[in-house]
Amino acid sequence: MKMKLHAILLSIFVLAGCAHETAIKEQNEKPNVVIIFADDLGYGDLGVYGHPTIRTPHLDKLATEGQKWTNFYASSSICTPSRTGLLTGRLPIRSGMCSNERGVLFPDSKGGIPEYEILISELLKEQGYKTACVGKWHLGHLPQYLPTSNGFDSYYGIPYSNDMDRIDGAGFNETGPHPEVKYFNVPLMKDEEIIERPANQHTIVSRYTDESIKFIKENKDEPFFLYLAHSLPHVPLFASEKFEGTSKRGLYGDVVEEIDWSVGQIISALKENGLDKNTLVVFTSDNGPWLHFNEAGGSAGLLREGKGTSYEGGMREPGIFWWPEKVKPGVISDVGSTLDLFPTICKITGMDVPTDRIYDGVDISPVLFEEKATQRDEIFYYDNEELFAIRKGKWKIHYATRENAYSKQVKIVKHDPPLLYNLEVDPSEKYNLAADNAEIIEKLSHIKDAHLSSVEPVEDQLVLR
Amino acid sequence: MKMKLHAILLSIFVLAGCAHETAIKEQNEKPNVVIIFADDLGYGDLGVYGHPTIRTPHLDKLATEGQKWTNFYASSSICTPSRTGLLTGRLPIRSGMCSNERGVLFPDSKGGIPEYEILISELLKEQGYKTACVGKWHLGHLPQYLPTSNGFDSYYGIPYSNDMDRIDGAGFNETGPHPEVKYFNVPLMKDEEIIERPANQHTIVSRYTDESIKFIKENKDEPFFLYLAHSLPHVPLFASEKFEGTSKRGLYGDVVEEIDWSVGQIISALKENGLDKNTLVVFTSDNGPWLHFNEAGGSAGLLREGKGTSYEGGMREPGIFWWPEKVKPGVISDVGSTLDLFPTICKITGMDVPTDRIYDGVDISPVLFEEKATQRDEIFYYDNEELFAIRKGKWKIHYATRENAYSKQVKIVKHDPPLLYNLEVDPSEKYNLAADNAEIIEKLSHIKDAHLSSVEPVEDQLVLR
Repeated sequence: MKMKLHAILLSIFVLAGCAHETAIKEQNEKPNVVIIFADDLGYGDLGVYGHPTIRTPHLDKLATEGQKWTNFYASSSICTPSRTGLLTGRLPIRSGMCSNERGVLFPDSKGGIPEYEILISELLKEQGYKTACVGKWHLGHLPQYLPTSNGFDSYYGIPYSNDMDRIDGAGFNETGPHPEVKYFNVPLMKDEEIIERPANQHTIVSRYTDESIKFIKENKDEPFFLYLAHSLPHVPLFASEKFEGTSKRGLYGDVVEEIDWSVGQIISALKENGLDKNTLVVFTSDNGPWLHFNEAGGSAGLLREGKGTSYEGGMREPGIFWWPEKVKPGVISDVGSTLDLFPTICKITGMDVPTDRIYDGVDISPVLFEEKATQRDEIFYYDNEELFAIRKGKWKIHYATRENAYSKQVKIVKHDPPLLYNLEVDPSEKYNLAADNAEIIEKLSHIKDAHLSSVEPVEDQLVLR
Repeated sequence: MKMKLHAILLSIFVLAGCAHETAIKEQNEKPNVVIIFADDLGYGDLGVYGHPTIRTPHLDKLATEGQKWTNFYASSSICTPSRTGLLTGRLPIRSGMCSNERGVLFPDSKGGIPEYEILISELLKEQGYKTACVGKWHLGHLPQYLPTSNGFDSYYGIPYSNDMDRIDGAGFNETGPHPEVKYFNVPLMKDEEIIERPANQHTIVSRYTDESIKFIKENKDEPFFLYLAHSLPHVPLFASEKFEGTSKRGLYGDVVEEIDWSVGQIISALKENGLDKNTLVVFTSDNGPWLHFNEAGGSAGLLREGKGTSYEGGMREPGIFWWPEKVKPGVISDVGSTLDLFPTICKITGMDVPTDRIYDGVDISPVLFEEKATQRDEIFYYDNEELFAIRKGKWKIHYATRENAYSKQVKIVKHDPPLLYNLEVDPSEKYNLAADNAEIIEKLSHIKDAHLSSVEPVEDQLVLR
């Protein structure tokens, strides 16, 4: 009898084991998603996007093995609104996460991502995904706004920009070659707790990397979503001992090359855990290079201007999609946006996009997997709360531009008649074709009106303090 | 007896056959060399160098499989001198192939590449190479200056720029989207004969390609040197029916994409004839984009200015080296130049560089094959006969610059103190560091003096008419 019982128990264990394995298998059929988001990286700052001295072999390889998008946009030219757009799939104007008065959230801010917004992390968590946010958040640092209140199981990072909480009178200079950690009293948080202040930014990229790899390993048997938002190469620039002084491009290059190294580490971890063929990896940045900081800022390559402007250099970014055997390798010149990530992730993970609100992106999985064209070709370029420009196909119209951003000479210039550029022929926005294209301008004015009428007034989250 | 004689004869034939095969084998141990040289293509005009809408999959693939050089220079910012430097390995100032008065050779010119210059084609021909020049020559169109008088077994192409021999008063405009063949009465030559006039430039890329492939096939059993110098994308732009209207970048893109197609055809021909593993393929351009022609000109990407200037955009070019299993794949940020091709070709084909004259390039085969650093880091930027700038390592000094090139506002600006840029950190030449680097300026002045003292006065070939 004893033996028989053992046999029965063994059978039960075996069956239970099988059931467990089946469950794992089913879960694993849901792909993992890894978004790696740089901060203030320009269109021209990667090797594969044309930089002559910044070495980015890991990102170059992803771009060659996967898709390299050449008309891929952040949803804003500055930080807080851009992150809102990526995680909600909606233009930041719809949630009050942009502001003419303050631009982004600051350490004294009391606002943040509104309760009524649905983040992609929240949907994925509901579907049983393990979710981690590592890096810069910048959607509100009070408890109700933190990642752990917005669909992420865990958080590890700096809650706003790495140049905030400045120590007054320390005489630091963000443009200097070696800014000191102590001049930027930014906190490093784990979930809702501050664990280090000021955060040691020299080791921040490697620590984000370690946290990310730990998360990948711990969740290798379950579907997961990793949102790794580097707080660099935003000024002040910090590299680790291993990278400082190694890039021909100087400290800015050191930092970008360390981020590239980090990407290589993440990919290795996926491969070592047998996850690479079941994981979509996306790499992009929140906005263009902060040109005001000269050599400490990046490059938009052949694109005009940078961060804080509605010229192409302000919002067009490297956009790399990698998923071996799924993403069709190629260079994609379709118009894409971080706003597309929300519906695309919904699609590939078997979720429906909520129908109770307006979304500004489209599912780009047909481009990624089937070499089809994307379903929309419009980009709306906001300067804080104001719609400054629109792209429709190859045409871009500027109703206003911000000149000399971040300088004492900053000014808003209104254009009537508007400026009109053919971005496919003239990506550098040099040749104004407005005089010969009245009908295009007319058509775009209808698109403008239709878009603006879709935007409902909401509370400005960034002015709350 | 009869049988015996037959047997003896047969043996002789067999032995002769073997000897012939051995000869072929020995010859084949000498690698073939293919140089593909574009005209007025900018640093930023290929996909792999960052252009968002020009599609260059064949060149991108060569750059990924081989070496992509990001600090590779033409020997001049304009046509005739640049071609002189490539083929002689010497700065054009040494042979009178640059001129303050005329810039380049014109249809009324009586001068050309001097008899005393040794072209790489001449050395290779002496070594038993089959040699062909296909495309634009521009080193003199009188018989004694033509390719067939300069080491090439054959010539097929337009002997000078494709915008010359203009029909007066036809009202053409090089910048227009569809220039007409008849407005540019340039000849197409075969060896020393004109076979078509005006050359039908719509089909010129495909005809150059056909000629090149024919040459490759005919010489597959012997070592060969093919110098394919496209006369495009120099304005006026012409594409074939197959390509016209196909690129998002407009006609300029059509032309570059047709050249990329041509590169793909050449590579296919090498592969089909089993020659790819015994052939060094080099792709580059003669000078930067002709920005004066707006959308009909190319882009230097993040580099400053273009053709006709000593800023980086004038002379820095895509530089791609491909030779499967020989060239080590990678991105190379060492300083290189078309002046290096002469000594490098000498090295790989087992020839000595002549010792009776000054050469301005170095053998870069250690970089290509052994991942070693190059042996020199200096670039001399001439504006016609004047030395305007010098690069030494990361430093570039400008003693003078040409502003508003090709416009009515053109002017030469002398800089005293000179301008000083760190090209590795600041490839766009934005931040003048002269004030803090007196010792660098002093060091560069010695390099300048030493270089200028090496230049002996010679007859200006370009003023002869």
